[in-house]
Amino acid sequence: MPTLESVIDGVLITELRQILDDRGAVLHMLRRDSTEFTEFGECYFSEVFPGVIKAWKRHRYQTQNLAVPVGRILIVIYDDRPNSISCGQVQAIELGRPNDYLRLQIPPGLWFGFSCISDIPAILANCADIPHDPSESDVLPVNDPRIQYNWKN
Amino acid sequence: MPTLESVIDGVLITELRQILDDRGAVLHMLRRDSTEFTEFGECYFSEVFPGVIKAWKRHRYQTQNLAVPVGRILIVIYDDRPNSISCGQVQAIELGRPNDYLRLQIPPGLWFGFSCISDIPAILANCADIPHDPSESDVLPVNDPRIQYNWKN
Repeated sequence: MPTLESVIDGVLITELRQILDDRGAVLHMLRRDSTEFTEFGECYFSEVFPGVIKAWKRHRYQTQNLAVPVGRILIVIYDDRPNSISCGQVQAIELGRPNDYLRLQIPPGLWFGFSCISDIPAILANCADIPHDPSESDVLPVNDPRIQYNWKN
Repeated sequence: MPTLESVIDGVLITELRQILDDRGAVLHMLRRDSTEFTEFGECYFSEVFPGVIKAWKRHRYQTQNLAVPVGRILIVIYDDRPNSISCGQVQAIELGRPNDYLRLQIPPGLWFGFSCISDIPAILANCADIPHDPSESDVLPVNDPRIQYNWKN
């Protein structure tokens, strides 16, 4: 179940288990018996080179389940849903080991973007609830004035 | 659908798409509309440090769907199923980018193990069809004489 508070309504942040071992860790991501699991649509990885920003995207139907097994990612979520109690809010969350190995669930309707803040390329893993469909998402440029967040780059 | 031939009966090897980009690639793993998809049980990652061998394991019920988004892995499969047309065979497959970004499906009943053959830690991602359950797998030591494979380490 979610273990950390989120500013944005509907966003769930869950600490994930890292089973440490001197051969390399086993890193949990998502199980079908997790409270937050609904459906499996697609698993894929987004590699992000150091300093790179990938933003902004909003899905209409797809829920994201994100975790960062390698490197570190800063993910920023912006809520402009008119009927949301957190409308107008921005939340920035760091994801990555060892201290922030978290699963971040982002429901549809929220803008989000992410950047790699580690010296090594980061991997953002996503177990989304429906397969990728380019027609169900919207994009905005990284510096779009409608989103009140300045990426430091 | 499977794109490369496997020596071991029931093992499927499928080339996965890498959508290259100067910001970092998008790497496909598994979609529910893939021919090879049956059910989603659990997604997790096994980190493997350079030179490390994790072997041997055999699942009784769980099917593995494996891919390596970071680093390189040598995975070895041994078939001792008495009724298999490939009984007694060993297959070694390298997984990793850029040329071997493959999904390897291993059905239950086969022994397998893997080692990291890159200079950086490798990540073996698994989208298994049932959640992890320690009671449904068997283990053997890495040098067990019943498996005719010598790990070079």
